[in-house]
Amino acid sequence: MLLERINAANDIKQIDKKDYQALADEIRQFLIEKISVTGGHLGSNLGTVELTMALHLAFNLPEDKIIWDVGHQSYTHKILTGRKDGFDELRQFHGMSGFPKRRESDYDAFDTGHSSTSISAGLGLVKARDITGGDNTIVSVIGDGSLTGGMAYEALNNASKLTTNFIIVLNDNNMSISENVGGVSSYLNNIRTTSGYLDLKEGIYNALKDKPGGDGLVTGIRRVKSSFKSLVIPGMFFEDMGITYLGPVDGHNIGKMIKVFHEAQRVEGAVLVHVITQKGKGFAPAERHPARFHGTEPFDVETGLPRNPRKTANYTDIFSTVMCKLGQRDEKVVAITAAMPDGTGLKRFHNMYPDRFFDVGIAEEHAVTFAAGLAAGGLKPVVAVYSSFLQRAYDQILHDVCIQNLPVVFAIDRAGIVGSDGETHQGIFDLTYLSGIPNMHICAPKNKWELSDMLKFAVNFGAPIAIRYPRGNAYDGLEEYRAVVELGKAEWIYREKEIVLFALGSMVREAEKVRARLKEMGHSVSLVNARFVKPIDEDAVLDACEGHELIVTLEENVECGGYGEKVLSCMNAHGCRNKYLNISIPDAYVEHGNVEILKQEIGLDAESIVKRIQNKLSE
Amino acid sequence: MLLERINAANDIKQIDKKDYQALADEIRQFLIEKISVTGGHLGSNLGTVELTMALHLAFNLPEDKIIWDVGHQSYTHKILTGRKDGFDELRQFHGMSGFPKRRESDYDAFDTGHSSTSISAGLGLVKARDITGGDNTIVSVIGDGSLTGGMAYEALNNASKLTTNFIIVLNDNNMSISENVGGVSSYLNNIRTTSGYLDLKEGIYNALKDKPGGDGLVTGIRRVKSSFKSLVIPGMFFEDMGITYLGPVDGHNIGKMIKVFHEAQRVEGAVLVHVITQKGKGFAPAERHPARFHGTEPFDVETGLPRNPRKTANYTDIFSTVMCKLGQRDEKVVAITAAMPDGTGLKRFHNMYPDRFFDVGIAEEHAVTFAAGLAAGGLKPVVAVYSSFLQRAYDQILHDVCIQNLPVVFAIDRAGIVGSDGETHQGIFDLTYLSGIPNMHICAPKNKWELSDMLKFAVNFGAPIAIRYPRGNAYDGLEEYRAVVELGKAEWIYREKEIVLFALGSMVREAEKVRARLKEMGHSVSLVNARFVKPIDEDAVLDACEGHELIVTLEENVECGGYGEKVLSCMNAHGCRNKYLNISIPDAYVEHGNVEILKQEIGLDAESIVKRIQNKLSE
Repeated sequence: MLLERINAANDIKQIDKKDYQALADEIRQFLIEKISVTGGHLGSNLGTVELTMALHLAFNLPEDKIIWDVGHQSYTHKILTGRKDGFDELRQFHGMSGFPKRRESDYDAFDTGHSSTSISAGLGLVKARDITGGDNTIVSVIGDGSLTGGMAYEALNNASKLTTNFIIVLNDNNMSISENVGGVSSYLNNIRTTSGYLDLKEGIYNALKDKPGGDGLVTGIRRVKSSFKSLVIPGMFFEDMGITYLGPVDGHNIGKMIKVFHEAQRVEGAVLVHVITQKGKGFAPAERHPARFHGTEPFDVETGLPRNPRKTANYTDIFSTVMCKLGQRDEKVVAITAAMPDGTGLKRFHNMYPDRFFDVGIAEEHAVTFAAGLAAGGLKPVVAVYSSFLQRAYDQILHDVCIQNLPVVFAIDRAGIVGSDGETHQGIFDLTYLSGIPNMHICAPKNKWELSDMLKFAVNFGAPIAIRYPRGNAYDGLEEYRAVVELGKAEWIYREKEIVLFALGSMVREAEKVRARLKEMGHSVSLVNARFVKPIDEDAVLDACEGHELIVTLEENVECGGYGEKVLSCMNAHGCRNKYLNISIPDAYVEHGNVEILKQEIGLDAESIVKRIQNKLSE
Repeated sequence: MLLERINAANDIKQIDKKDYQALADEIRQFLIEKISVTGGHLGSNLGTVELTMALHLAFNLPEDKIIWDVGHQSYTHKILTGRKDGFDELRQFHGMSGFPKRRESDYDAFDTGHSSTSISAGLGLVKARDITGGDNTIVSVIGDGSLTGGMAYEALNNASKLTTNFIIVLNDNNMSISENVGGVSSYLNNIRTTSGYLDLKEGIYNALKDKPGGDGLVTGIRRVKSSFKSLVIPGMFFEDMGITYLGPVDGHNIGKMIKVFHEAQRVEGAVLVHVITQKGKGFAPAERHPARFHGTEPFDVETGLPRNPRKTANYTDIFSTVMCKLGQRDEKVVAITAAMPDGTGLKRFHNMYPDRFFDVGIAEEHAVTFAAGLAAGGLKPVVAVYSSFLQRAYDQILHDVCIQNLPVVFAIDRAGIVGSDGETHQGIFDLTYLSGIPNMHICAPKNKWELSDMLKFAVNFGAPIAIRYPRGNAYDGLEEYRAVVELGKAEWIYREKEIVLFALGSMVREAEKVRARLKEMGHSVSLVNARFVKPIDEDAVLDACEGHELIVTLEENVECGGYGEKVLSCMNAHGCRNKYLNISIPDAYVEHGNVEILKQEIGLDAESIVKRIQNKLSE
């Protein structure tokens, strides 16, 4: 086993060249076996085994820095930097992260998680190197999917001015999570299909090889390009921006990549190396279904089928079904996703109403302002998006949707603790950033029927409105509580006295457990399904203050700017002097791990909540 | 006077062709005269007189829609749509907005204010048109400066897939507010300098003019392009993305523009018309100093000099001076602006330390992640930015700076009510969106000396920190109160009893007035300079709760997630039962107008505050 010899960074440099492919194959088997047990990102990692090996062979880590855009493709990098053993506890609480983390390893140069940040961060490291007089190499590795995000282009526009070396590796697998979209994708596809791997360019290399010195080579290529432009050499799109283009190169040919990386290192400026890889390579099911194996639950290696097939519908399924119904009833309903047709559940809507479905690529900013335009044009757009990714479009929600009070519906999936993806993906800020925005309305369903009711309500609401719901199984309890959804109205579930729990969305389920335990202890406990965060139900709060000693709010969001602070402000404004307890997420990032464990850690489980309520009562 | 005949939309169509230039000259004089009195955006409007006329002549408003990116260049559009008289009260309270507003006119198709949104919004209107079966023309007008913003590129990437008409007018004046930056700018410059206006293209038009039908023409052009590409025709950058390119065309030649717009209307898909204009055209001082006349105070028409020269330093001046000192003392201090070297006061730093200054273009997202990279590389970056523009980088602050706890300083100018620019520019959300983010620290100075002290503190703080300060004159009172800046420590100014005012930043000055009036009425009033919003000074709050009946917080931010809610939560957590009053901005957008008037409107002036305090005391 070659992999046994890889136990620390740069061990790969001791491997014989002829064994590179064998090592790649072993890494691939290792990844498949490990991820089949723990779950994790498979397809992108299988696609970048050779690319990562070539980077580690061509450069000197940790002096040289690699920034992995998004970062879910960094598994081979982790293997090659002494973290092989971490895969047994991949993405588990206190186990190894599925993303690069500076606190995990000196070989992780910059933390990532969201898309399209790597060129900006890399350029920062380049400038810091130049100012402090360093001479190391900085490499940003970015996928073609991430290139659909605008900030990558902002960064390219700035990188073009560089006069010192900066290597951008375009890892082009013709995919984001799902199929890639847009003009640049077509353009890259055109390069892929019309250019033999580096052949045309190599022809030019050969013609120029008598020129003295490496700089001459590069200058020579530049001169040839000036004459023949894109007739001869692909990549003019990047060259037009001022970025030297090298490629395309076969991303599964380690020798060729090392050669090109060394070439790239000699460019005095920003250079883009276009590497073609295949997502899911080496595992037939992942090659066939790249979207399904992008991020996967544990699966059977033989068949590729899930080890624990899902039996219960999750909120995404409910959303998916209701959207199709709404689309059938009303031709004005249109749906928008930023590169997540599968993840958000819009795939069925896409199949049924292809003309009213828009996948805009990894471009949340555009998605939201585009939706504002659709609404201004008389349609009823629904933007389906994960909570943490919607952060990208904060200004667009505030500036393009809400100032004009346009009827855009935000269907916010993965709101609250998401689990194994960790800090960058937790959806715990949306109540804060959304509820500060005038004209915005926000609600959260307690169970699967309420998601359906709220979505129907929202589509005809006529103003900006967000519905947030969590990752995972949809709660199917409390079916009998299905009061009509009215703006700003909460729903009383149990009306008793002493303690009242105002629980938001996913926390209703937890509040039921809390209530059961408190009742066992002899307390009298009311439960209100909050439903609306903006506006909150002031009447329900005041009503509750009349008959209860302690008011408790429960939410899966940070405290600052969340539901609880609104309830407390309401109590204060009306002179209510009841005891008040805010159950929410503490002011700290929440790491990766099992959702139940994380909730215990941050005090959002029934047991912790009961304790805090007891303490508050005894104050 | 031709302008006398322009009193409603489409009146321009009654003007004789030969009089177009005379009308343009009259509009220019009108703009110079009016803006010299009211202040407003001058340079961009002088540059787009003919362009706007040509659009109004070529298209049929309001059926056809024009979306003005940023929108400050829409003055001629307002003149041509019956709003000439509005210029006497331009940007004044209840007067005409300096930006497009749907509520102001049916001819304003989409509200704008921030940069780079117009293509996304236009694409939304295009798709709404296609889905609802309309056949009107949608035109997005975007400056070359706005093209440095990533979301414009996200939108272009999506527009490339269109099979129906969508006209994007690139208004290229080779400027953002200051000089333009980056690769795309160089690229456009290259087109400008190497191509005669449409000459090469017209050569092809002539060669093809025997082809039957307009579609044939377009197809013909496409075919020629496929063969000769950018050797023959400029604009391959856009063509590579799948956008048809027409131009460049002289943006001061109305006849030529009309011809090209009609040509563009026949393209079945997205078409970019590249129009070259001169910012400030027709007013010599503005042609010479485009940055100064971008947004101007009232000025003397003869000399171009300000009518009321500023005598007092504003916060931007203080920031500018201190940054230069810090730059001298510490070579690790670097400064970043997103296209606002003048507005943020970084121009002097730029002149003194050109290698440590970065103008990244209108690209706030990149600016912040780039700063994170600089910090990860060991430097001490200061991002100087307006509060409302920083909204664009919310996710980058949360995801790239704060998760890694990187020492980036955010110098947030124009925080609070900014006045005449209105809704889109008010800096009233930053406390909310920033203080929800873990690891972030936030402070605000009471006067000019404190801004200096806080900036020095921040640069060596070693973690993410924001300093927010308002537009306008720097307060130079309370000089004798200059306690050392310590993290999370407030500053007692007056310590009495009964009422305590916790005032943040700009509100300290107002709180002094409030205190004076309350004392006249016989009250005993303490005043605390809050200094830190995150973390708040809990000790000071608890200390105050001991000796006062009423706690008041005062801030220029919306209530939700602001300073006051933190104080109230702190009081609640510690069982303080004092009366509490939150003085902050109500949950609504604040329109344009004089800052003092706006503060009265929203109850943030001393008189309103005194009344509210009296009411609270009597509850």
